[in-house]
Formats: sequence, structure tokens, C-alpha cells
Amino acid sequence: MTDACRWCERKLGYRFCDPEYLERALTHRSAGGQHNERLEFLGDAVLGFAIAEALHRSLPEADEGHLSRLRAALVNRETLAELAQELDLSRHIRLGPGELKSGGCRRSSILSDALEALIGAVYLDGDLPAARMVIMSLYDVRLQDLPPPEALKDPKTRLQELLQGRGLPVPVYSIEEISGEKHQQRFSVACDVPGLENRTVGAGSSRRRAEQVAADRMLAEIDGV
Amino acid sequence: MTDACRWCERKLGYRFCDPEYLERALTHRSAGGQHNERLEFLGDAVLGFAIAEALHRSLPEADEGHLSRLRAALVNRETLAELAQELDLSRHIRLGPGELKSGGCRRSSILSDALEALIGAVYLDGDLPAARMVIMSLYDVRLQDLPPPEALKDPKTRLQELLQGRGLPVPVYSIEEISGEKHQQRFSVACDVPGLENRTVGAGSSRRRAEQVAADRMLAEIDGV
Repeated sequence: MTDACRWCERKLGYRFCDPEYLERALTHRSAGGQHNERLEFLGDAVLGFAIAEALHRSLPEADEGHLSRLRAALVNRETLAELAQELDLSRHIRLGPGELKSGGCRRSSILSDALEALIGAVYLDGDLPAARMVIMSLYDVRLQDLPPPEALKDPKTRLQELLQGRGLPVPVYSIEEISGEKHQQRFSVACDVPGLENRTVGAGSSRRRAEQVAADRMLAEIDGV
Repeated sequence: MTDACRWCERKLGYRFCDPEYLERALTHRSAGGQHNERLEFLGDAVLGFAIAEALHRSLPEADEGHLSRLRAALVNRETLAELAQELDLSRHIRLGPGELKSGGCRRSSILSDALEALIGAVYLDGDLPAARMVIMSLYDVRLQDLPPPEALKDPKTRLQELLQGRGLPVPVYSIEEISGEKHQQRFSVACDVPGLENRTVGAGSSRRRAEQVAADRMLAEIDGV
């Protein structure tokens, strides 16, 4: 049994029938040969499905919006990279020389992609029950300690709800400036609440992001949070 | 057996053990009571998984980018609404009075949501094999007649590849105008190819969309497509 197989059995509780699946899941594109991108495509779909199903089952009263936000909070690059770090996955990823030198095995995209590929590999090797078991064991703590609905809403939604709760009008966002060259444009957006004196400005690589930053600052100003 | 049950058996080849699932899948939020949004959340995940798996299996040589683009072309509001129309789903959707008056049952969002909810309902009623069978029968023709890789790339990507293939520089996009109020802003973007005289302009509700329109027009101009 290879080192990676032992690690997988210890950390994920799964023993591969065909260790080639595991090997491929741990091989980044830069290493050449059979790499993990197709497995990542499959694993992403298995993961999204398993988490959606678990949330749907365990929260029978939650509405669709809350379920969607929970899923987005559980299945995203940052959370997957955190999980990969908890597993010490980076020690087992095979990278090409360029990525190795630049410390690629610590990059969150490489980590999260490899973890999705690992889930895809378990699915191909052991079918859905095995993949579900691995996913549930990975997400065990996070599924037991789900964030409350309030914590999941984006700043613009929270701001709008706060203002409506106080009988105030909805905020107005307006673009102040767009600067920079094509692929590196920066948007600067102001947030005003009609009737309030406060004005906040946010910047970001898209109009939407700049609006969220401005809304977050407005929330901080008027709510003292 | 209700009318909806007969329709479902005839069109999808599936008979519900518990027809309440079917009833709920066909009930839009506007009709009040138990509606289909939670089922839609679940169905969306089941569908994404089943299509990803089918593509992964049937195209062993396709790379991840191609698989992702195919999935996006198969699982989106427009395709789901088309499938819903082929099934004559709108006849069976229960809407509230407001939506009924405004012809809501023909709206693509209501149709595609209801079809996803129907898939979620089959999954809860008959588990994964039943849901898979329904999805495969829905997508039968489309899975047998998949678009070629070239047809799936967005206009900006196609334009860039065409120019590179001809040894020309990459196109330059620049915002010409932003007009309209906050939630209804229109972006107008110009596309220039250094060294060529052509200039095209596209408009859309986001900068990205406007760029794609401009790129599509540039493609038509220089390629005669």
C-alpha cells in the first residue's frame, strides 16, 4: 500500500480498490500525464449534490434562500482549502517543477481542486455511498455547527433589511469612478441612504463588489457593528 | 390517480408512490401553502450531479473546460424552460391569482424552477435511480447531440483565439458609456483590434455582457460568420 493510500485510509476512512484513482486525484495538471481536472469536475458535482441533500434533510424548516446560502458557505474554494489543510493534503499533491518552486501546494485553488478530485475519485472507486460517507466525515463539524441565517446574508441585503426594519428608504448606489485598463478596472461606488447624512464609498474589481463594500461600511456606520 | 399523476407517468415515465411530492413540485410560491422552492433547491443539485456524471462517462476524452461548458449549456434556465415546454408542464403548474393574470406560467423562471422541483420530487419519492432515469429521458436527445467544443466558447474567447490564429494582437475593450439608474444601468462597450480598422460596440446590463456582444459583432465583421 502506498503512502498516499495509508494517508487516505487514516484521514478519510476510505481504502481505494483501485489506487490509480487516488494517484490521479493527487496529480496537478502541472505534473503532466494523467492529471486531476476531470475528477475535479465530477467531484464538484458529487459534493454539491451531497451537501444539498444533507442540508435539505437536516433543516426541514429552512427556506430555499437559506439552504442556498448555507451550501455556498460550505462549498467554496476557501472552505475546501481549509478542509484540505486540516487533512494535510498538500503533502500528497504531485506538482510540476514550476509550481513546486513557487509553493503551489499551498495555493488554495490547487488544494481545493485536489480535494474535489479526491471526492470524484472516491465516487468512481466506491460509488455514491462511499463518496457520501467521505463527504459527511469531512464536513462533520461544519454541518453540526451551521451559521445562523443572519450571518449568511451579504452586506447589501443586511443593509436593506436593517433600513426597512427602521422604516427608512432603501439605499442608493451610484458609480463614482471607473479607473484602470480593461482587465484591471477598479470600480468606486457610493452608498447613500435618502434621509440620512451618511455616505460611504467602496471600491472593487466589479461594480457589485464595490457596492457590497460600500454597504458593509454603511452598516458599520449606522449600526455600530 | 390525479390528472397531474397521469401526465407525469405519460411524459416522464414515472409514477409517484406519494403524489403529494408531485403536487408540491407543481405549486409555485404565489399559490401559497406548501410550495416548490425547497424541492427546486434539491432538484437543481440532483440534476447538476446527474448531468455531470453522464458527461464524464460518455466523453472520456473531453477536458474539464469542455465538460463544464457542456454542463452549463445543458443546465440553465433557458434549456430547462424549453424542456418544460416540450413536456407541456405549464398546464399543471399551480400559481397564485396575480401570477395567473400576468401569464406567469409561461415565464421561463417559473417553468425551469418547477421542472427542477419535479426532479427533486422524483428523487425524494424514488431515490437516485428514479431521478436519474427521469433526467436521462428528459435530456435524451440533447445528450446524444452535444454541441462541438467550438460552439460552446463565448464570443470573447472565440475572438481572441481567431486573432491569435491569424497572428493579430488581442482585442481591446473600453467602456463608452454607462447610463440609467442604479438597478437598471446599461453599459456600452467598444471593441477594437489594434491594427484593424473595424470597431464594434455592444450594450448590456453589465460590462461583461456588453463586451461579449461587442466581441460577437467583431467576430461577424472579421470572419463573415
